Amino acid sequence: MKYSTKAGLPPGSLVHIGNKKTEKSVITVFRYNEKEFEEFSSVDIQKLKEEINANQVCWINLDGLHEVEILEKIGAAFELDHLVLEDILNTDHMPKTEESENYGFLTLKMLNFDEKSNSIVSEQVSFIYSQHYLLSFQERQGDVFEPVRDRLRNSKGKVRQKGADYLLYVLIDCVVDRYFYVLEKLSEQLTELEDSIIQGAEEKHVQEIQVFKKQLLVIRRAAYPLRETLNTLTKPESRFVHKKTLIFWRDVQDHIARIIDTLDNQRDTTNSLMDIYLSMLSHKMNGVMKVLTIIATIFIPLTFLAGIYGMNFKNMPELEAENGYYYLLGIMAVTFVIMLYYFRKKDWI
Amino acid sequence: MKYSTKAGLPPGSLVHIGNKKTEKSVITVFRYNEKEFEEFSSVDIQKLKEEINANQVCWINLDGLHEVEILEKIGAAFELDHLVLEDILNTDHMPKTEESENYGFLTLKMLNFDEKSNSIVSEQVSFIYSQHYLLSFQERQGDVFEPVRDRLRNSKGKVRQKGADYLLYVLIDCVVDRYFYVLEKLSEQLTELEDSIIQGAEEKHVQEIQVFKKQLLVIRRAAYPLRETLNTLTKPESRFVHKKTLIFWRDVQDHIARIIDTLDNQRDTTNSLMDIYLSMLSHKMNGVMKVLTIIATIFIPLTFLAGIYGMNFKNMPELEAENGYYYLLGIMAVTFVIMLYYFRKKDWI
Amino acid sequence: MKYSTKAGLPPGSLVHIGNKKTEKSVITVFRYNEKEFEEFSSVDIQKLKEEINANQVCWINLDGLHEVEILEKIGAAFELDHLVLEDILNTDHMPKTEESENYGFLTLKMLNFDEKSNSIVSEQVSFIYSQHYLLSFQERQGDVFEPVRDRLRNSKGKVRQKGADYLLYVLIDCVVDRYFYVLEKLSEQLTELEDSIIQGAEEKHVQEIQVFKKQLLVIRRAAYPLRETLNTLTKPESRFVHKKTLIFWRDVQDHIARIIDTLDNQRDTTNSLMDIYLSMLSHKMNGVMKVLTIIATIFIPLTFLAGIYGMNFKNMPELEAENGYYYLLGIMAVTFVIMLYYFRKKDWI
Amino acid sequence: MKYSTKAGLPPGSLVHIGNKKTEKSVITVFRYNEKEFEEFSSVDIQKLKEEINANQVCWINLDGLHEVEILEKIGAAFELDHLVLEDILNTDHMPKTEESENYGFLTLKMLNFDEKSNSIVSEQVSFIYSQHYLLSFQERQGDVFEPVRDRLRNSKGKVRQKGADYLLYVLIDCVVDRYFYVLEKLSEQLTELEDSIIQGAEEKHVQEIQVFKKQLLVIRRAAYPLRETLNTLTKPESRFVHKKTLIFWRDVQDHIARIIDTLDNQRDTTNSLMDIYLSMLSHKMNGVMKVLTIIATIFIPLTFLAGIYGMNFKNMPELEAENGYYYLLGIMAVTFVIMLYYFRKKDWI
Amino acid sequence: MKYSTKAGLPPGSLVHIGNKKTEKSVITVFRYNEKEFEEFSSVDIQKLKEEINANQVCWINLDGLHEVEILEKIGAAFELDHLVLEDILNTDHMPKTEESENYGFLTLKMLNFDEKSNSIVSEQVSFIYSQHYLLSFQERQGDVFEPVRDRLRNSKGKVRQKGADYLLYVLIDCVVDRYFYVLEKLSEQLTELEDSIIQGAEEKHVQEIQVFKKQLLVIRRAAYPLRETLNTLTKPESRFVHKKTLIFWRDVQDHIARIIDTLDNQRDTTNSLMDIYLSMLSHKMNGVMKVLTIIATIFIPLTFLAGIYGMNFKNMPELEAENGYYYLLGIMAVTFVIMLYYFRKKDWI
Repeated sequence: MKYSTKAGLPPGSLVHIGNKKTEKSVITVFRYNEKEFEEFSSVDIQKLKEEINANQVCWINLDGLHEVEILEKIGAAFELDHLVLEDILNTDHMPKTEESENYGFLTLKMLNFDEKSNSIVSEQVSFIYSQHYLLSFQERQGDVFEPVRDRLRNSKGKVRQKGADYLLYVLIDCVVDRYFYVLEKLSEQLTELEDSIIQGAEEKHVQEIQVFKKQLLVIRRAAYPLRETLNTLTKPESRFVHKKTLIFWRDVQDHIARIIDTLDNQRDTTNSLMDIYLSMLSHKMNGVMKVLTIIATIFIPLTFLAGIYGMNFKNMPELEAENGYYYLLGIMAVTFVIMLYYFRKKDWI
Repeated sequence: MKYSTKAGLPPGSLVHIGNKKTEKSVITVFRYNEKEFEEFSSVDIQKLKEEINANQVCWINLDGLHEVEILEKIGAAFELDHLVLEDILNTDHMPKTEESENYGFLTLKMLNFDEKSNSIVSEQVSFIYSQHYLLSFQERQGDVFEPVRDRLRNSKGKVRQKGADYLLYVLIDCVVDRYFYVLEKLSEQLTELEDSIIQGAEEKHVQEIQVFKKQLLVIRRAAYPLRETLNTLTKPESRFVHKKTLIFWRDVQDHIARIIDTLDNQRDTTNSLMDIYLSMLSHKMNGVMKVLTIIATIFIPLTFLAGIYGMNFKNMPELEAENGYYYLLGIMAVTFVIMLYYFRKKDWI
Repeated sequence: MKYSTKAGLPPGSLVHIGNKKTEKSVITVFRYNEKEFEEFSSVDIQKLKEEINANQVCWINLDGLHEVEILEKIGAAFELDHLVLEDILNTDHMPKTEESENYGFLTLKMLNFDEKSNSIVSEQVSFIYSQHYLLSFQERQGDVFEPVRDRLRNSKGKVRQKGADYLLYVLIDCVVDRYFYVLEKLSEQLTELEDSIIQGAEEKHVQEIQVFKKQLLVIRRAAYPLRETLNTLTKPESRFVHKKTLIFWRDVQDHIARIIDTLDNQRDTTNSLMDIYLSMLSHKMNGVMKVLTIIATIFIPLTFLAGIYGMNFKNMPELEAENGYYYLLGIMAVTFVIMLYYFRKKDWI
Repeated sequence: MKYSTKAGLPPGSLVHIGNKKTEKSVITVFRYNEKEFEEFSSVDIQKLKEEINANQVCWINLDGLHEVEILEKIGAAFELDHLVLEDILNTDHMPKTEESENYGFLTLKMLNFDEKSNSIVSEQVSFIYSQHYLLSFQERQGDVFEPVRDRLRNSKGKVRQKGADYLLYVLIDCVVDRYFYVLEKLSEQLTELEDSIIQGAEEKHVQEIQVFKKQLLVIRRAAYPLRETLNTLTKPESRFVHKKTLIFWRDVQDHIARIIDTLDNQRDTTNSLMDIYLSMLSHKMNGVMKVLTIIATIFIPLTFLAGIYGMNFKNMPELEAENGYYYLLGIMAVTFVIMLYYFRKKDWI
Repeated sequence: MKYSTKAGLPPGSLVHIGNKKTEKSVITVFRYNEKEFEEFSSVDIQKLKEEINANQVCWINLDGLHEVEILEKIGAAFELDHLVLEDILNTDHMPKTEESENYGFLTLKMLNFDEKSNSIVSEQVSFIYSQHYLLSFQERQGDVFEPVRDRLRNSKGKVRQKGADYLLYVLIDCVVDRYFYVLEKLSEQLTELEDSIIQGAEEKHVQEIQVFKKQLLVIRRAAYPLRETLNTLTKPESRFVHKKTLIFWRDVQDHIARIIDTLDNQRDTTNSLMDIYLSMLSHKMNGVMKVLTIIATIFIPLTFLAGIYGMNFKNMPELEAENGYYYLLGIMAVTFVIMLYYFRKKDWI
């Protein structure tokens, strides 16, 4: 569904905007503290909500957004605002964060690089975070969070010892780390494209540059607002982000800054690609022109000479001369050599 | 009437600037609270004004601005400043908002996409808002507010339970939602234009790019100042915007931000279209040059050979040779083949 | 006199920088309140100054700046700083405003469009404003203030009921309104230029684009600093601008904002004109190349064929054939038709 | 000496960076108050320093920076920080100002236009200013301060009545006034260059545009940081700039603003010069192509016709016709005329 | 190791990102105060840490980052945060500074110019600074700090008399001074490239411009964030930077500002290089076209004339004329001379 089809509905109407990207919505729950850990699938949201307490962190993940009724249940259980649910469903939303009294809301783009189609795949991930629970909403199954789940299961790193805000940080860190991977893939593409253009500009390159620009745009639209989002998140007013985790958030912000820096450089390089392309085209044209000019410049005068002695005047003494023909051939050969020398001097051949 | 024709008149003179866009000015009134609802046409503005009270929201809509006297009556009844009336009439005005002691004033552009002319239609809509009433002024009949009227009539959504500021929000939300629709239409146009250029640059494309740029300008000039306008509107100093509706306004602001983001991207794409166009033109020229060069490079030397043996020298032994003619044809054929091979290697054919 | 010729003089030296634009300096005085009105020419500045009182507004206008001694007299009578007088005389000054203890100083550019030379005419107008008087200084006779004078004479509008600051507002409003007129004229020029280029790029267009850019610059240099100037003027610290007239000033500021918006758009359009020009040039070149290629590609091979049968070999059986000539003509005709078909397919003819 | 050669020395090492621009360092002293005035050369810095008192202003000027020991003496006498002395010697420094407890430091570029080499000459001038003395340091003899010296000698203007800060203002005013002169010279160059390019683009113009850009850069690098410098200087915290001279400083700031405005315009114009150049080049190429096309298009078909009747077929009835030759010449003439007409219609000749 | 390979590891995991640039990690220690000085290699970090006291400054330098366990020991001894160690190891990090309770962290790029490969060599240097010690971490042996070491050994300059923050300043000053050297090398390259292009644009220049742009990028990415870094470092909140050294830091900031200014200018120049390149290419093409046009325009008509008299019409009186051949040669010679004259007038030869 496109966004515009929603026009006219009352604000807060729940409609899934985006393609249905998974078959069935799946809810997975991780409940843990430093000592305990359980992982299970559940659909009884209400019970989950009631069991949340200060001793455990509860991470509820929903894969698949097209079954709006599930989202409505979650919304009812966790008392989420309708506008927030709307933002979760609208997968065309820009990254942003907002805190209300009981929970914080954060939405961002999870990027991945599809080797088959050689293009970036973007998926919207939204989070509802509070002191003791974290809800995450993904468009489809399969994500970049598997290492985090492993660390939770095996109690690796500090994630089991810390709260829901640290879990949120770890998840976002995973997302941002994947941006680096995507950027490196794009970087390879860019280098290939540049080499290919320098070896010989072809018509298809124009389109390839356009396609690449659009790829860059996807990641820029994910990274730029995420920077703002993280700035908002780590403001001192935040109720749910502990001061103690601020040092970690600053680390993610550094990463985002580095990504944006690389993006800016890649954009500059992309823009100069078009210049290179056009100059390569000019070079090719120049080459074509030179061949034409060399051939024409050599043979047009010689043909003229031949034309002269092809005339039928009665009185043309040269024609009668014993060696006239050979003399002429000689003159032509000399002309030919002089021409070649001239072109060599002009650096044309 | 153009704006410049107003030069020299005292400030606050009421002159309708713009084309007459409707036959007759029409006033429609919606009066409602959670329980009651009435909808009628009226021209007795003074009585309407006196009946306004804290129990009801009164929405008065005027279609058609060319009958200045009606506007003057409204201005008198609601004690509107003359400069505000002037701004309502000047349909060339940029979106802005201003609050005076008794009312707020907001003007913006309602955009629509005319399928017939394949272009954006812009109409100025102005609002006077206060605690208990909302005045809206449109250039002509027909607008994007029909869904709101339906919700009012059928008490759908929350609009009947809330005040005039919520009604204002709902109306502006409708206007902004239509921007998305217009943008999608432009997006389609842009993709078509891009494809068409890549398939073969033609002279008309230059003009089409220009036309598209002007379309983009229309929506940019509507959306950019609207962002500022909404920022001003939602400042804490506002007298007429309740803190409780702020969350809704923030939602519209998000939408506008998204529209502006898309606009910026479309502008970049449009700018690169001209580059694509020029590179396509260069390619075409390259193709033309190649054909010329191939033909000339093959036949000019062959013609020279033919010219040699068309000469009339007395003593040309080759001419006397039994198979001279056939030998020459053979040499020509070999030259021809070598040339073809050279061009193939150069990737010209 | 150019500015640089002033280098080395002590600061505050009074030298008229600019061309002498009027024959004789003329002083006209308007003295009025709501009931009284008088209009006269005077040169006794000192007496005028002494007669100024709180019951009347006194507007003294000087046309012509080359008679420096008159300005010195005014400066002496009204106790103006020498640096201010210098700024009035330096007609190359950018719009600005400054308040000292006893008076405010504002200088701006009055633009007009000269239909004959088809170009903008710029004239510097400076104002000295205080509670009860307004001095205005113009480079030459003839201005855009005639409607204001009429309103003063006939007591139209509110100008006779208000103070000197309102008069200043009305005059600046006149100046800014004329900017719209100038912009519309430029807009027409731009449309004409664009059409002319699209119909066929010619060498003169490069110059015309340059000339148009310089015209835009004139109005930009008048409008941009004027915006700053009005912002400074309407700051709360101002001693001479009443809070009650602020709503009017905001109106002029809106106008200036609109002018600047239009200017920015025109500049973008002008910049893209050069692109259009160059692409039109490429198209023309393309057309020339195609004609050359078509002619050469058709006739060079045919000429080769004719050359073959113009050779003088003894043994050329085709030459002896009864219908050889007609067969050859047939072959040539077929080649010709095939070529035409090829070019048609390539969309060249 | 280049700056990089200093790398590795301890900070504050005094090394003259720049070319030796004068033969011998010269110290000239002006000591004055409203009634007294003396001008002399001196090298006894220590004595000068001790004689400084509140009744007199003492201006010490040093021409020539290569004799580092003199600077060291001055530094010792006036207790200047070593980093400041280093900045004075580093003639590659950007304009800046800094105040320490006992004195202020300001460095800027004095520009001049050398008519011979047709280029800008830049010289660094540094000032040490305090309540009662002003030190100035120049790279070589000859400056733009002569008018100031005359005013001091003849007690013209207010300079003898005011303090060291006013003297500083007057000197900087001289420097800035000279910027206008340099800008006018550049402006003339630019106009000449533009005219020359429009009359016919030549290869040398590319270099001339580059040279001009570098000239603009020289003045931009002098003027832009000077604006910041003056802003810093006139901040209320300044110890050595009297509030009473602020009105004068604001005047210089206005001048700098005007210079920067002009510079920005000239840069835009310079950038568009390259566009003009390239379009002129395209025009020239177009002209060349047209000549080639006209000649080839006219004569290639005619040559083909001549080739036809140069064939040696036995049976070619036209050849036998009495007036065949004349008929053919007629056909050729008609073809020629038709071609000319076609080119005329296409506007090629 | 590329950064992306780290994705999925818990935050704070110590992995060396970058190439192994030295064979063996080496730790060198400088311990000094005004009177004492010792220099030695040590690996007993823990002991070093314990011996640190307020009477001495201890500078520990580590060359080589690939032996992660050494870094871990240092981290343990000095109680460094794991995220900081991670930043030290990630040699792809942007310059930044951060203060925690016990120490400050600063990372920057040390640039050098490799004469052999004619390119910039970048090495990450990180500092941990506190009141009494300074740790520095370099990727490999060999740096720009040798002069500082000499000054420490010989007690030159003030470095032995001041604290660890002054040592940090002196080291950063060395790094920044080397930027000037690198910039001068780039400047030479740029001038060479420019000259080479103006002498004749060749295909390789496109690549050389690209390479140069990437070089500029290396230094820009080192210098721009360093400016921010130094701003952060010198904020009044800093615990470890004495107010007394602030004047020195301001000096480094001036240097960085100058470097950035030069970089901006070089970038502008580089961008215009591509324009120059393309215009040179156009010129070359123009030259080729002219040769072609001159040859074709001269000989095509002459060949036509020869073709005319090569025809075999029975009745061609000119052919029978005694001097027909000579007359024709005369006509051809005249045509030839006229053509030459025409080209000369057109400035083509």
